[in-house]
Formats: sequence, structure tokens, C-alpha cells
Amino acid sequence: MSEEQEFLKTISEKLIKYITEPKSQGLCNFQQPKTLEKKFDLALSDVGANYDTLITICEQVMQNSVNTGHPLFLNQLFGKVDNVSLIGAWLTSALNTSAYTFEVAPMFTLIENSILKHMSSKIGYTDGDSIFCPGGSISNMYGLNLARTHLYPEIKNVGMKEIPKLAIFLSEQAHYSFVKGAALLGFGLNCLFRIKCHENGVMSTENLLIQIEKAKLEGYQPAIVIAVSGTTITGAFDPLVQLHEICKKYNMWLHVDACLGGASLLSSKHKHLVKGIELSDSVAWNCHKFVGAAFQCCPFFTRYKNLLKKAHGASATYLFQTDKFYDVSYDTGDRSIQCGRVVDAFKLWLMWKKLGDSGLEDRVNSTMELANYVKDEIKNRLNFQLFIDEPQFVNICFWYIPEKIKHLPKTDPKYKEILSKVAPYIKKEMMMSGTCMVGYQPLADYVNFFRFVIFYSLATKSDMDQFIDSIEKYGQKFNQELNLSI
Amino acid sequence: MSEEQEFLKTISEKLIKYITEPKSQGLCNFQQPKTLEKKFDLALSDVGANYDTLITICEQVMQNSVNTGHPLFLNQLFGKVDNVSLIGAWLTSALNTSAYTFEVAPMFTLIENSILKHMSSKIGYTDGDSIFCPGGSISNMYGLNLARTHLYPEIKNVGMKEIPKLAIFLSEQAHYSFVKGAALLGFGLNCLFRIKCHENGVMSTENLLIQIEKAKLEGYQPAIVIAVSGTTITGAFDPLVQLHEICKKYNMWLHVDACLGGASLLSSKHKHLVKGIELSDSVAWNCHKFVGAAFQCCPFFTRYKNLLKKAHGASATYLFQTDKFYDVSYDTGDRSIQCGRVVDAFKLWLMWKKLGDSGLEDRVNSTMELANYVKDEIKNRLNFQLFIDEPQFVNICFWYIPEKIKHLPKTDPKYKEILSKVAPYIKKEMMMSGTCMVGYQPLADYVNFFRFVIFYSLATKSDMDQFIDSIEKYGQKFNQELNLSI
Repeated sequence: MSEEQEFLKTISEKLIKYITEPKSQGLCNFQQPKTLEKKFDLALSDVGANYDTLITICEQVMQNSVNTGHPLFLNQLFGKVDNVSLIGAWLTSALNTSAYTFEVAPMFTLIENSILKHMSSKIGYTDGDSIFCPGGSISNMYGLNLARTHLYPEIKNVGMKEIPKLAIFLSEQAHYSFVKGAALLGFGLNCLFRIKCHENGVMSTENLLIQIEKAKLEGYQPAIVIAVSGTTITGAFDPLVQLHEICKKYNMWLHVDACLGGASLLSSKHKHLVKGIELSDSVAWNCHKFVGAAFQCCPFFTRYKNLLKKAHGASATYLFQTDKFYDVSYDTGDRSIQCGRVVDAFKLWLMWKKLGDSGLEDRVNSTMELANYVKDEIKNRLNFQLFIDEPQFVNICFWYIPEKIKHLPKTDPKYKEILSKVAPYIKKEMMMSGTCMVGYQPLADYVNFFRFVIFYSLATKSDMDQFIDSIEKYGQKFNQELNLSI
Repeated sequence: MSEEQEFLKTISEKLIKYITEPKSQGLCNFQQPKTLEKKFDLALSDVGANYDTLITICEQVMQNSVNTGHPLFLNQLFGKVDNVSLIGAWLTSALNTSAYTFEVAPMFTLIENSILKHMSSKIGYTDGDSIFCPGGSISNMYGLNLARTHLYPEIKNVGMKEIPKLAIFLSEQAHYSFVKGAALLGFGLNCLFRIKCHENGVMSTENLLIQIEKAKLEGYQPAIVIAVSGTTITGAFDPLVQLHEICKKYNMWLHVDACLGGASLLSSKHKHLVKGIELSDSVAWNCHKFVGAAFQCCPFFTRYKNLLKKAHGASATYLFQTDKFYDVSYDTGDRSIQCGRVVDAFKLWLMWKKLGDSGLEDRVNSTMELANYVKDEIKNRLNFQLFIDEPQFVNICFWYIPEKIKHLPKTDPKYKEILSKVAPYIKKEMMMSGTCMVGYQPLADYVNFFRFVIFYSLATKSDMDQFIDSIEKYGQKFNQELNLSI
């Protein structure tokens, strides 16, 4: 075996150990950026390094990174990579090709078609088109671009300047990718009309109707409604059937951001959450979220058969020759805004092959159950307070209320000021001790609360107890250190 | 060892064999899409598969994919993955995280900063900003969006409708991503003013000045010039110093698409090709091209320090909290149009660490030499005709002229009709025999010619001889089968 093969074997074995024994490593070993920077030889120089140095470097990277496979990594909407999916990603990388033409990616093209067809049928689109995107944000931008191309096909040539001012309606709690998209696509942020939400995070259709009228008065053409199926913060599901009715009435496009909540389609028990999704015009669904496909895995779907090509196509003559000796309808790349495109389909398809629909359904159901367990635990503990009493999905948002401020009125500025510091404090303590990572943020008038999102993982109820205990422990520490008179 | 670990080990060993013995497998095993579809169990079902089935599937995928590591894979601008870079990609996938915040990707954040700083200094930007993008196309779109944000900062809010009609100038031979970008970003294709090229593919600055005046007459504000450093087809380099002068005069942004030609910056012998690149406003540079980083590896650079954030930022409160306990300037994700972002930096950084600047320089120089060898060979062979006698870079474009049409005038429609069929015919024969893959396309008034692009690979002069022999062999076959009277 050559020195190079030895190196490849050594690292891959270390990685296999890393992913198959996720609890054997700590969660994180937090160090301040400047400290970490000084500790490692990050700089590049004229002379190359040998394989032994590279092995040391790889070990250092592993030891000083965050172990997202740890059951108490609850910081994002993704986490432990499914091991079979990871092998799909490794194979894809080793074969080093692009998903634009059949000739360079024959198997991957067919596999992409297969998984997309299977998922389309779960959504309930009978025909339509679909493609993998580099992230849910770009999938959401595909929705915006397809919408305006469908409504104003001339836009591709004439640009935004020559079509009416289009309005985009979306809930206050919709993902920030629509802000990025409205800017990038030349709509401008002024085109975004934010809709009020009910207490549970679900968009108010009454307020949508008000906003539509407001937009019209301001000279906008109502064009696109963004529905969220599983909001980022509270995991709320907007009412798709009602939104479809409104869209039909105003001739608007209905895009569903199901990046998180799309997973509910895999469970007969939970798919009621996205009731009516088959009535939408486009859907974004991230499979690195919730079910554990290797990051990043983001198919996008539309009900219209040739619209992706119409909106994005540029027919490059050096790639998409029409005089090839095979059926060029298998050259699918021109439907993307990308040229070279990483094969993301295989890592999902291989995992799905392993688990089957039934295995994925189990994964969704058990994750939902675990989230429910956490919600009940939090409800029953002193000093914890849920943000929403009955969350619809796997997002459990809550505060830890220090004993010493419990007596203060919730509207007291001092109460708010102190409460806003609790989550950052606890998070810091948890990260410094390397025990747990969980997200927090403010929302509207509410100060910093925790957002716990459980994800397919190897986590057990006992891990969840440990999480809640940890919050409690550091919450009590905060309380002890709190000097109310200051 | 568990059954799962056995599976992971088996596949990774097979993959290591695959990449370290690239010649031991054939190049491809072409089958028509419908045939391939029937041959494999692509469908997904309710019941999952066992690990043995998955191993068989992975073997089938490997055997029926294109071996882009083969020295005669000359079909694209990428090819054999560097093995160290691949290990970087594998580690990145196993650690399954996103490059948006320091807290979830501490090591990767620092590594991304390190490699981007190193590359920026190669370009000659003294400050500025940079980020990895999912592909060169999206990098080019970053250039377009930063340009208009720099010129009209209000665009983020007001959109394209409320700013002047902007004109984008680019060579006839610029990459099709600018077409996709002009459509997606709401410019509209009418905003694109295509500049004539000289015979060698270099943009005519005289024609640029004419087009600028034309655009002004049509009511456009000249805004962006796209320079190409290494065009897709002929590998031409636009004159950056002159273009910078013109941009300065008209207050236009100069974006350099150096996706292919950026590699020349790594060689003191060849970096004259991009002379003046330090004067530009933004640069796209793909490292999966030419030097062999794992696909896809696309940093984008701009000379302006805070412009990426200004153009793309949306300050999501659940990710980019300002009350964190570390220096949040290390949370770099909001400068991207993406939310979750695959870590592409590590696979480049690790390869660079192994090779050093000097190793990369050798790689560029030897690749250029091999291209030169092919050019000379083609020049010296009967029935071959170069498209450009002295190409600037690694793209060697040429025709094979069948003996039987040699006597016809080049303007004869019959000559053109027959010649256009030669490249597709030869390509088909080469693919069906699994010996070689090379691209072809028409350009302007010229019918189908071959585009040979050599890439860092393990290829030798003898491999190149085999390539040219192969073209000759099937070219002669075409000639034999040709019945001029029909």
C-alpha cells in the first residue's frame, strides 16, 4: 500500500469511528476565535506538508470542531448525519462529477430522477418538475423566480423594470431567505408585505387579505404568497387550503417553504400538517433537516412541467448540444441557475433505499414523540415557561425564568432586561463546559428564549432529561449570581 | 465491528481503490438512458434494503458512472479529484456542519478565512472580502449583484424598478451564467450587450466602446463590464488593464470571470495572462477546475470590505445574535445568499497545505506544458486543423477534416454540413468503445469542433498520443463510411 493509500485509509477509518460512535467524543471544546487561531498552523506557505502532518491536522480539526452527531447538539435544524447517507456523499465526492448532463453522470441522473419522482408523488404533484438546489434559501428563490416567470414570461428578457410592481406576501415568521431573495432577484425589500401571525406562529389569513388590499393601494400587483410549513422558530404550519383559495382568487402563485416541515409528508400520522400542499405551485423541502440526509440536500418542486427550463435555461452549446447520440431530455442541468452542480441526490436516495418509506416514517414519528416528551417535561418543571403551549411540530420554544425575577410583572423593563440575558448566559455556560448546544433568539416583542429543535438522532429520553437538567443547572447559577439591586 | 461499520469500511476501501488506481477501471461503459434505467432497481419502496444490497448498488453505481479520474476524461474543465482534497471533502461531510457561524464550525471558519486571505493576496487585493459559493455561476451572479449594490445602494430596498436601466457588457464568448444571472437578478436579457471578439477569442475593446455608446443611446446606464480570464471554449484572456481604464472612465464595475484562468495566478510563468486583475472590483475563481480540488470549490472575491454583507445580509436573529459571548465578526454566513452553506474551504485548504504554493505552481506549469504538447501534435498531423493556431491557455480547439471533403471549398454548404457531423460521430464512437471523452460544440459561424481541455491529471504524453490517435482512428472510419454522392 502506498503512503498515499495509507493516509486515505487512516483518515477514513478515523472518520468512520467518529460517526459511528457519536457519544464517544465530547460535543464541543469551545475556544475563543483568537485563541484557536493562535493554536494551529492555519497559514499556507510555499513548501508542502507530508502525510503525517496532514493526519495530525485532520485529527485537530475533528477534535476542535463541533460534533453535530452528539445527541445534545440541538443548535440547528440539522444534526447527526445518517451513516448510509454519508457513504452516499463520500461515493459522490470520489466520483467527482457534475449533475448537468447524462453523459458525465448517467447513474446519478437516473437516481436523481427516481428520488424526485418519488418525492413529488408524496407532495401530490402528478406531473411537474423538480431539481436539487444548493440549500433551502436558493430553493425558495427558485420559487420566487418561477412565480414571476409564470405570471410574466417576458420578464426573462425585459427584466423587472418593464413589468408591474409585484408584491410578495409572507408571514412575519417566514425564513430570512425571502429577504435575501427579494433583494437578489431585483424585487427590492419594499415588495415584501409581512403578514401578522397568531400566537402559535401561524399566518393570519385575515391579515393577508388586509395586506393584499394595502399592496394594491400602493400600486403593487399581488403576485406571490409564501406559505411556511414548519417555521424556523416555532415550527408553525400556515393553512395551505385557505391560502390556495386566496391565491386562486387573486391569480397569485403559492410557494410553500416546507424546508423543515416537508418531513411530515413521510408520516401518515403527521402529514395532516401540510394538508393542501398538492394545491401549491412550488415547494422547497430540505432533507438534511429532520431525517438526517448528509448536509446539504435540498430538492425543489413545481407543478409546472417546463417552467424551470423556461425560467433558468440558457442552452449553452458546449454542454447541451442537441446533436448528441442519446435522448438529450436526460441532460437536466439547464433547468438550474448553476452550471456545474454537485450530485446531492445519491446521498438521499441511498439512505431512502436503506430505510424504505416505512423506515423514514418511523424516524419522523419517533422524533415527533421525543419532541413531545421534551414539551411535557418543560411544562412540568418549575421556572420553565413554554413560548407556545401546544407547538405543532418539533420546535419547543421556552424561557428559563430565574427565581429572583418571578415576582416582577412581565411588562417591567427590568424583568425583560434580565430575562433577555438568561439564554445567552446559559448557552455560554453549556458551551464552555461542552455539554450541550441549543439556539436562542428574540421574536417580535419577546426577549431571548430557547429554541429546542429535535432532529432525527440517536437521542433518548434520558439525553433529553440531561438537556433540561443542564438548562436548570445553569439557570440556577444565573439566579444565584443575580444581584437584583444592581 | 458492527454490520454498519463493516459496510462503511467496505465502501470506503472500494472508493480508495477507485481513486488511487484511476487507470485500472475503464473510462465509461456507455448505455442508453432507457437501457440503464431498466437494468437497475432505481425505484424506492416501502421496505428498506439490507447492507449487502447497498454494497451491490454502490458497486453498480461505480461501474456504470463515468470515471472522471481517467486520463482520457477530457470532457469538461474538471476531472481527476486530488486525493488529499477528496479526504478534505470526506472529513467535511462526516462532520456535517454549516459554514455560517463560528459556534458550529469553529475550525472551518478559521480555515476558510486562511485560504481566502491567501488567495486574495495572489489576486492582489489588499483588503476586500471573499466567500465560497456553490459554483462559478453563482459566483458570477455575486459579481453582478455587488456591482449594482455598489453603484445604487438603494436597490436592495427599491428593486430594479426604481433605478436606471443598467447595461452589462460582456464578450460574445463569456460564460452562459451571465445570461442566467441577468434573468435571475431581474436585469433581463435585453440588458446584456455582447462584445465582438478577435479571432483568438479575446474581447475587442474597440467594440466595447461602440457598444457602450449604443447602450447609452438606447437609454441604458453603462454599469458592469465582465472580463473573462480563460474563456470556456477557447481559453482566451480579456485585456484587464485596458478594461479597467474604460471602467474607470465610465464609472463601471469590472468583474473578472477567472473561473478557469484564475489558476494562472499560481504560476509565476503564466500569471502574466491575468495582468491587471488586482485592478478589478470582483473575481470568480473555481479551484475544482485545473488544479483538482474536489468538485465543487468556488471562492468569490471583491475589493470592497463590507459589500457582501451590505448586498446579501438579512441579519437573521436566530443565527446571527449580537449578544453572543464571542467576537461575532467570525459569524460570516450572512454575507452569502445562502443560509446553510456547505464547507468547501477545507478540501482546498488541505490540498494546498499538502502541495504548498510550489506544488500548485508545478501542477499549473506541467498542465500547460501538456496542453502545448497536444497543440503541437495536432498541428503536425494530417487532417487535423486547429481552431486557433496559438491558444493562450489549456483549451485546444480543432477539427478533424475527413479526407473526402478536403477538396471542397470551406464555404461550400456541403462541406459545412459534413464537417458538423464529424465531431458528434467521433465522440459517439469513442464513448461507445469507452476509450475517451472529449467535448465539442459550434461557435458563431463555425460548425462543431472539438474542445480539448487538459486539466491537472495523471495524464502523460503517451495518454495524449492515445487521445489524438483515437480521434484519427474514428475520423478515418467516418471518412470511409462517407458517401459524398448522397
